[in-house]
Amino acid sequence: MSAALTRDLRRAAGDAAVLDGDLRHYGHDATEAHGIAGVPAAVVLPSSTAEVAAVLRACDGLDVPVVPRGGGTGLAGGAVPLGGEVVLGLERMVAVRSMAPEHWRTEVEAGLTTGHVHRLARESGLLFPPDPGAAEQSQIGGNVATNAGGPHAFKYGVTGRWVTGLEAVLPSGETVTFGGPVRKDVAGYDLRSLLIGSEGTLAVITAVWLSLTPMPEARLPVAAAFASADAGCDAIEAIVASGLVPAILEYLDAGTLTAAGASFPAVLPPDAGLLVIAEADGSPAEAARVREELLEVLSDGALSTHAPQSRSDVEALWRWRDGVSTAVAAHRGGKMGEDIVVPFDRLREAIAATVEIGARHGLDACSWGHAGDGNLHATMMLRRDDPDGLARAAAAAEDLFAAAVELGGSVSGEHGLGWVKRGQLARQWTEAALDLHEGVKRLFDPKGLLNPQKKLARPS
Amino acid sequence: MSAALTRDLRRAAGDAAVLDGDLRHYGHDATEAHGIAGVPAAVVLPSSTAEVAAVLRACDGLDVPVVPRGGGTGLAGGAVPLGGEVVLGLERMVAVRSMAPEHWRTEVEAGLTTGHVHRLARESGLLFPPDPGAAEQSQIGGNVATNAGGPHAFKYGVTGRWVTGLEAVLPSGETVTFGGPVRKDVAGYDLRSLLIGSEGTLAVITAVWLSLTPMPEARLPVAAAFASADAGCDAIEAIVASGLVPAILEYLDAGTLTAAGASFPAVLPPDAGLLVIAEADGSPAEAARVREELLEVLSDGALSTHAPQSRSDVEALWRWRDGVSTAVAAHRGGKMGEDIVVPFDRLREAIAATVEIGARHGLDACSWGHAGDGNLHATMMLRRDDPDGLARAAAAAEDLFAAAVELGGSVSGEHGLGWVKRGQLARQWTEAALDLHEGVKRLFDPKGLLNPQKKLARPS
Repeated sequence: MSAALTRDLRRAAGDAAVLDGDLRHYGHDATEAHGIAGVPAAVVLPSSTAEVAAVLRACDGLDVPVVPRGGGTGLAGGAVPLGGEVVLGLERMVAVRSMAPEHWRTEVEAGLTTGHVHRLARESGLLFPPDPGAAEQSQIGGNVATNAGGPHAFKYGVTGRWVTGLEAVLPSGETVTFGGPVRKDVAGYDLRSLLIGSEGTLAVITAVWLSLTPMPEARLPVAAAFASADAGCDAIEAIVASGLVPAILEYLDAGTLTAAGASFPAVLPPDAGLLVIAEADGSPAEAARVREELLEVLSDGALSTHAPQSRSDVEALWRWRDGVSTAVAAHRGGKMGEDIVVPFDRLREAIAATVEIGARHGLDACSWGHAGDGNLHATMMLRRDDPDGLARAAAAAEDLFAAAVELGGSVSGEHGLGWVKRGQLARQWTEAALDLHEGVKRLFDPKGLLNPQKKLARPS
Repeated sequence: MSAALTRDLRRAAGDAAVLDGDLRHYGHDATEAHGIAGVPAAVVLPSSTAEVAAVLRACDGLDVPVVPRGGGTGLAGGAVPLGGEVVLGLERMVAVRSMAPEHWRTEVEAGLTTGHVHRLARESGLLFPPDPGAAEQSQIGGNVATNAGGPHAFKYGVTGRWVTGLEAVLPSGETVTFGGPVRKDVAGYDLRSLLIGSEGTLAVITAVWLSLTPMPEARLPVAAAFASADAGCDAIEAIVASGLVPAILEYLDAGTLTAAGASFPAVLPPDAGLLVIAEADGSPAEAARVREELLEVLSDGALSTHAPQSRSDVEALWRWRDGVSTAVAAHRGGKMGEDIVVPFDRLREAIAATVEIGARHGLDACSWGHAGDGNLHATMMLRRDDPDGLARAAAAAEDLFAAAVELGGSVSGEHGLGWVKRGQLARQWTEAALDLHEGVKRLFDPKGLLNPQKKLARPS
């Protein structure tokens, strides 16, 4: 770190905000297992929007690039300082600026964990519905910057739907706010939505206004195992066609069940080809009604069903579901997953394509995910004793992206492009659209100092 | 119209697409009563995306400005050719490109009326929730371009929430698509949301992919009259605080009831200071439950309640609500309304401010609107025999905008800036944010040929 940089960062955020010592923690995110890591030029942890602005002004003054960092749970390398950037961590910005349960809203700083936001809402009988996998570690600012999803997105939408306003600092150090505590606003271009999902490449989000909704009193899951992926997909389509609106509509394929099924908290037929999990929520009577109807639709053709009602049994099912990703990783020793998304009616093709693509590259592949949203966690299982497995998985990923676009979908439904998928947007957007993407980046960050090389529209 | 323009437009869209004769219909929108009208240089009605692209290329080649036009129901002058532009009407682009009721989605061209989209969904047991006032005349493309709202936005969100993808033509004539039939997509910057609500100033929307949802089986309204605006606002806040989620949560103030109350289809106390209308929806049992709870909360402090259950009585109530705007206009001979929005808890102040601002300018003022969203139709009543009433209403509008921003809100919750509110964004955004707004316009429309002078961030 140059003396000028140290001096200016300390001046901007205070001596204690500029970390000394081992900075490795800030050199990677959840893609570390795939060898994606860098070394920050410096790590600075400002504790206020004014300090974030001062840090960005200092870096702009020295032409030093900056990587904004939330909880470090990203799965696309979006927060990794691969070019020796300054890492700007939001973890000290954790104030709850306002909480108005009677008006269903809160304003929180970016560094608050998403789990904290969940609890804040729950304590007032409210729900913040977005529930990405790593909610206890991920920060709300990072979730907004990636427009994170999760199982409840089927009924409740992704993170962006719940953001009525945000405060952000531009690379120049200027602070802007778009929206606020209002539920509707069509005065300006929707720059709030433009920043949501921009993965820290346009501005550093420092605070968000969130809309909340009353917590459903009851949440009842229904799981059903089917003999084949096709039979399971038939059932998934039957639920949607029946006009039921489950809060969650998930699936796990045969390979996933092979890796994770042993700890399923009920009887799981050994020959299950697909497991469907739906959740009914609402008032106790409404949830019970939807649960009954889900059971009726799913029972038709199922090998078995499991529809727990006691709190402990319900929790056991979700705990198992939460552990699936870890179980799949443990099955062979590692995994590499992609979050492709396809139109709902192409789900069965995407499930089959994942397995076929794995086989083509000599890898066991499986998938699970958000069936109702057509969003797969298409996963290549890696063996520890397979030195070039990672390279073959990377090649398989390219085929997966191509398959997603071929099926009318997108290369990313949840994780974003980050570093891992930089340039993949060119598969699905036309040249004119890619030009606009790059133009937006230049407009917000003319010097290219904010999270460089991330979320690139075209291969560099 | 110059000979070159005629020739190029005919070449682009066919001879029949370029209108001859009286073009006055295309010279105004719903703001005509306030004297806002222009004369188009030409009117062209392309019937395909390729023709729209050809028209825009032709106009770009001649440096001729273009105003895109939907149903002409706008309330901000956004589709009015005030500088003698070419009007590009979408009314011949009415194809339903796909309809998949079993997957809750449709792809329709921009010129289809929103009412047609409602019926298309309803025929399949589905709901397209956005319900702006002029749905039978407004076109879905225009509704997306203004991100239209309506009563059901309280529970179901505004138009943009239901748009998963759109096809649009840039001023250069390039066609782009952002999103599609997928329910999630975080690969690129959210340029879909950026075009939603951009009021035809960035691109011409030619088709949209819409998400639909199962039609609630039952919809039951509850109306309650209160002695004062404060008592009514207490009740509105009590509903939200109680954790009920009505589909609709509307209010009408004393002045509105004076103008429109005579035809209310039930007994309305003569001294009513505020009327609240909520709607319970869902399965028959769920709607009945929510209706009961709404009645319980609203009865506390109400002068009277009206909660019809028969289809004809329910329809009579909504028919009355739909006619309120017309009744208010008829009361004195005319009206001028603004769609300000404030944080939910500032609604009562905005209601009071509207009346005070009217009085300050010598005008009877009233308001009604989407209470749950804090979105007022703040309205100045105009007398036919008051020659400078319009000028005083315009001055009052400036005060209303200032009041909305002062209360933490926005100058527009539904109608957009258009021509009427051009420059008003400067009240609520900082200089850096306004610069970005203008930068986005330059990025999409470097020559400034698309809907010039509309949705300006700063006063020109």
